[in-house]
Amino acid sequence: MPELMSEDFLLQSETARILYHDHAARMPIYDYHCHVPASQIAEDRQFETMTQIWLAGDHYKWRAMRTNGVSEQYCTGDAGDWEKFAKWAETVPACLRNPLYHWTHLELKSPFGITGKLLNPDTARDIYETCNALLRTPDFSVRNIMRKMNVRLVCTTEDPLDTLEHHQKIRSDGFEIRVHTAWRPDKAMAAENTLALNAWIDKLQEVADVYIADYRAYLTALRTRHDEFHANGCRLSDHGLDMAYAADYTAKEIKAIFDKIRSGKPLDDSKVLKFKSAMMVELALMDHDRGWVQQLHLGALRNNNTRMFKAAGPDTGFDTIGDCPQAAALSRFLDRLDTQDKLPKTILYNLNPRDNAVMAAMIGNFQTGAVPGKMQYGSGWWFLDQKDGMIDQLKVLSSMGLLSRFVGMLTDSRSFLSYPRHEYFRRILCNLLGRDVEKGELPRDMKLLGQMVEDICYNNARNYFPMDCD
Amino acid sequence: MPELMSEDFLLQSETARILYHDHAARMPIYDYHCHVPASQIAEDRQFETMTQIWLAGDHYKWRAMRTNGVSEQYCTGDAGDWEKFAKWAETVPACLRNPLYHWTHLELKSPFGITGKLLNPDTARDIYETCNALLRTPDFSVRNIMRKMNVRLVCTTEDPLDTLEHHQKIRSDGFEIRVHTAWRPDKAMAAENTLALNAWIDKLQEVADVYIADYRAYLTALRTRHDEFHANGCRLSDHGLDMAYAADYTAKEIKAIFDKIRSGKPLDDSKVLKFKSAMMVELALMDHDRGWVQQLHLGALRNNNTRMFKAAGPDTGFDTIGDCPQAAALSRFLDRLDTQDKLPKTILYNLNPRDNAVMAAMIGNFQTGAVPGKMQYGSGWWFLDQKDGMIDQLKVLSSMGLLSRFVGMLTDSRSFLSYPRHEYFRRILCNLLGRDVEKGELPRDMKLLGQMVEDICYNNARNYFPMDCD
Amino acid sequence: MPELMSEDFLLQSETARILYHDHAARMPIYDYHCHVPASQIAEDRQFETMTQIWLAGDHYKWRAMRTNGVSEQYCTGDAGDWEKFAKWAETVPACLRNPLYHWTHLELKSPFGITGKLLNPDTARDIYETCNALLRTPDFSVRNIMRKMNVRLVCTTEDPLDTLEHHQKIRSDGFEIRVHTAWRPDKAMAAENTLALNAWIDKLQEVADVYIADYRAYLTALRTRHDEFHANGCRLSDHGLDMAYAADYTAKEIKAIFDKIRSGKPLDDSKVLKFKSAMMVELALMDHDRGWVQQLHLGALRNNNTRMFKAAGPDTGFDTIGDCPQAAALSRFLDRLDTQDKLPKTILYNLNPRDNAVMAAMIGNFQTGAVPGKMQYGSGWWFLDQKDGMIDQLKVLSSMGLLSRFVGMLTDSRSFLSYPRHEYFRRILCNLLGRDVEKGELPRDMKLLGQMVEDICYNNARNYFPMDCD
Repeated sequence: MPELMSEDFLLQSETARILYHDHAARMPIYDYHCHVPASQIAEDRQFETMTQIWLAGDHYKWRAMRTNGVSEQYCTGDAGDWEKFAKWAETVPACLRNPLYHWTHLELKSPFGITGKLLNPDTARDIYETCNALLRTPDFSVRNIMRKMNVRLVCTTEDPLDTLEHHQKIRSDGFEIRVHTAWRPDKAMAAENTLALNAWIDKLQEVADVYIADYRAYLTALRTRHDEFHANGCRLSDHGLDMAYAADYTAKEIKAIFDKIRSGKPLDDSKVLKFKSAMMVELALMDHDRGWVQQLHLGALRNNNTRMFKAAGPDTGFDTIGDCPQAAALSRFLDRLDTQDKLPKTILYNLNPRDNAVMAAMIGNFQTGAVPGKMQYGSGWWFLDQKDGMIDQLKVLSSMGLLSRFVGMLTDSRSFLSYPRHEYFRRILCNLLGRDVEKGELPRDMKLLGQMVEDICYNNARNYFPMDCD
Repeated sequence: MPELMSEDFLLQSETARILYHDHAARMPIYDYHCHVPASQIAEDRQFETMTQIWLAGDHYKWRAMRTNGVSEQYCTGDAGDWEKFAKWAETVPACLRNPLYHWTHLELKSPFGITGKLLNPDTARDIYETCNALLRTPDFSVRNIMRKMNVRLVCTTEDPLDTLEHHQKIRSDGFEIRVHTAWRPDKAMAAENTLALNAWIDKLQEVADVYIADYRAYLTALRTRHDEFHANGCRLSDHGLDMAYAADYTAKEIKAIFDKIRSGKPLDDSKVLKFKSAMMVELALMDHDRGWVQQLHLGALRNNNTRMFKAAGPDTGFDTIGDCPQAAALSRFLDRLDTQDKLPKTILYNLNPRDNAVMAAMIGNFQTGAVPGKMQYGSGWWFLDQKDGMIDQLKVLSSMGLLSRFVGMLTDSRSFLSYPRHEYFRRILCNLLGRDVEKGELPRDMKLLGQMVEDICYNNARNYFPMDCD
Repeated sequence: MPELMSEDFLLQSETARILYHDHAARMPIYDYHCHVPASQIAEDRQFETMTQIWLAGDHYKWRAMRTNGVSEQYCTGDAGDWEKFAKWAETVPACLRNPLYHWTHLELKSPFGITGKLLNPDTARDIYETCNALLRTPDFSVRNIMRKMNVRLVCTTEDPLDTLEHHQKIRSDGFEIRVHTAWRPDKAMAAENTLALNAWIDKLQEVADVYIADYRAYLTALRTRHDEFHANGCRLSDHGLDMAYAADYTAKEIKAIFDKIRSGKPLDDSKVLKFKSAMMVELALMDHDRGWVQQLHLGALRNNNTRMFKAAGPDTGFDTIGDCPQAAALSRFLDRLDTQDKLPKTILYNLNPRDNAVMAAMIGNFQTGAVPGKMQYGSGWWFLDQKDGMIDQLKVLSSMGLLSRFVGMLTDSRSFLSYPRHEYFRRILCNLLGRDVEKGELPRDMKLLGQMVEDICYNNARNYFPMDCD
């Protein structure tokens, strides 16, 4: 049995092993941010092949495959399921030291119970068939996988136009795992493309059943959807931004900009910035009024490859790490809300690791004592969701804030097989703390440390987010 | 006894232990940059409670407390001393992995001799009373604490308007520990607020006894104060800047800008930048003429929380890490001085760790052989004054410059209980070198390494700064 | 014998030792980027002293010496060879933890066989004379040093105006080690100085024998040289840039800008940027048409010390790490080429380590499956060519791409004694992998890992670059 799939994977000290096995491993999963399709939970989908559940939509794997010389046909293309899986299996041994290598084998271990072999061309067929056979049993329906993985709650991510019918179905089914939606209004402020924004506003008009004559009506329509999301259990928002926007603007300017948007004319950069700056505040105010948590995902630079964007669309593995400045605008945005005493609980995530310290220090400026850990520096995101990235996030958060108040890990994934990312995170966390104890840098107080581990793995999130789950 | 308060705390190899105990620990403390109030040394203040000496003014602790859900009343507010201490003690166990956890226990060990227990709600009352009792003995007057900690020299930090009466008192008392002032003329160039700057200039007029009719007179008045600082033992300056300023400007432009400042009208951004650029050069020239060392603290973004700024003022824990570009302007500023052969010895500190490499490489551009280690990359500052931050600074300085020429640690603190930060730094330094020796990456030449450690801990600073202290 | 010159230097586990000794150490050196003078290979130069071969032109050593208080006379000045060497020997013990300390002793070990002593003032004379005596034997001619170091191929770096006579001589001699040139057209786009650019264009006119009446003729002349370089074995280009340029421009604008350049008038910044943006595309298209690999070295800020630039010229140790933004323009530049399906194989190098993640993620956006590892994130460059820098590059490449496809190390050096940098890199690589295996983070599959090591050390480069060398 390869050590990398063993019980004690990544746990390099006795203290780490105790912290993990006696504390971390026992905690349920509270997956407060992910991108699994609610429809598949609603229908309790049964997948037929590993390719469908594991490769489809996984741009991490596609990037690795392309780097390894695999042609597009086997990534987003129309090759058969087995052919795609075989190409992935060929790529796995080339992924040594990439998080995919660890994820792959952790995911084969849980829930499939495969521990004695590594995925490579020699084992590919056998693993493929073993997993496919399991996937076709009722035990591996989407809901049963979630149960098997000890998931207690997930938040999917939806556009304000989403009807939430799948969430309603899930709730009315009485599914005991909580499935919430998260409000992702990126399109509502995407004024760099007035045509697309206008089309979106037209749809909003219908879905919200509000005639959108002007900016005020626009906010009303958005708030109608926000209310509807709230009524359907939504308690957090999510924003994908290259940076926070905090330009100066007046109500009059925004009104005029909105009218120009509705006229279909393009906006110059400064107007786009003003509009986004205004929208960020308005959307945050809605979150605050409803007691939601807002999440800001900062720093992605998207759709870098025009040719592939035309061929395969967005979210297919051509996004990257940007390097905009972050500190001043982010501070100003948060301060605008705090000044009115309307800053919601907020989680900041950065994509460029060079911004780690900026984020970890930033949250400290708005921790004002009312709520423990009100401002959060989120776990390593996307390109940083890997061992070094997580350790860096844990270290900088530790040094500049209170690790003990951290709400911990999330999968951010599009697949129902990604829950072992929590296991991976927990092992890394326990190993870090164990190392510190062994080196005399933390007290050997297992009660204190065990509690801290349990809090970061589950309790802090459960207490932080306004959603019931026990 | 918890290992984290043991003799060998952080010293993970035999070599590290030898380097620390036989070399580092024996060296006096040369604290060339701090913010303790000279008045308290002058009066040889006797504190009554730990809250007064340990919590008052400590924005590091306040940030941690706020993050832990402690209300402002117990930070900057009017709660009683014991109540504040109790809230801090509650917060300490939540600080695991934060530098405050280590600092707290190192500071209880020295000078209070508390080693058998960790601070938490169970031990709080006992520790509070033990320390208070000691604080009230003559042995724990400010001067005696400094003696106990083997301090040889400190530099406090004063505004050019400071009368330096406390420094004169200390000197005339014949206090054997050298207490110098450092010149901090930030307000002299703060042209972004012409009202405040004008008020400051009015006061300067009085203090310097120079009528400030124009820019030339302004420089004369500043130089008068600079001379006065020099006469009172000042040998280094300090600048807190978001970035170095190095815009192009003409003498005529600056003259006109100064007149506009005196008219009380606000300046546009480009004029502010020109004025600051000119002032940086003028102030550096004064330093060079007098043989002083200049320090640049680069990259803070201050007063981010408007609400708390109004409630509690500056320096209360709402400053953060900025992300301005640094390299080009800093290079231009230093080159302007070097071109005239008037670049003073200079220490660069950065607040954003992403700028570490820029700083460490920058100093190499102006090391021109005349003075060993003329240009210095300063120790981890503020948010970076923690174990990872110090290690990162040591590593990048090592890789891009000469660690052996480093002038080492300073407290940068407002409290007389912060001297163990030198101990903390020294343990980290010795452990790093010890690790290298154990791994065969450095020669096991204890004489060479021991000398290097002693130099970094004390000798380099003593030789670098133009102040006597033996 | 100091461990740092031992067989197992840096190899801290049994797995690391096996990977190094059984795999890495056996591979030849494929030095695809360096700055050794082709003339010295052509004449098979025999050096007389260590100063000539080891200190002359070595700005790394000069920076260290200046930092250590050595005056310029012993760096770029006219002191005697022994005096210069003695000053360097004095500086070496001050270089503990700097890469120069390791390089120095690795280079004394290979090819000089010195292992029993460290360089310092006590050993300086003896080492100097021992090495000088060896240097004067035929065994230590430039070509024989290269043979001794198991070099299989080197690429020097030349300006388009270079006649390539030395490369022709080397080839016609039948020297069995492949010596290619690399095309470095930085001067062809340096429009910030129209006088210098014009002078360069005048020379190009002669060398290419093309009358350069306009921009089109300029491109023709450049392509003529590009063809000539190709005919002489050139298969890769190299660009030293502060950042990639990707402004919008029209053909008409560039034509007009070129005419203005030829008129000798200075250009405003936006025109310089447009011109550079156009040139980058044109030069990359030439590379693509010929099947070359392009290298972009991004982020240096050069000639920071005006005084020393006047005294000693460029490349004398006064360059530094810049902090321009990199991501958006680099993405746009690469996309412009990819959109036309004309993006050459490309290697990105960054000088500021804060850009590591941007580079490692960027290559993933343009890996489109046709060529394994088509886009490369290059090894730690210049200030980052040291142990921590290399480890950081390996880690971020591992986490965000496929380490197994990495084309590995290069010397980037001006000296024939720098080949041990490959050894240094290989030891670091093997130690990293060995550590992972020991900790159970990689499978203990020595065949797989051994192959990966051999690939990174040699095979990947040999397969990637379109140059024969077996």
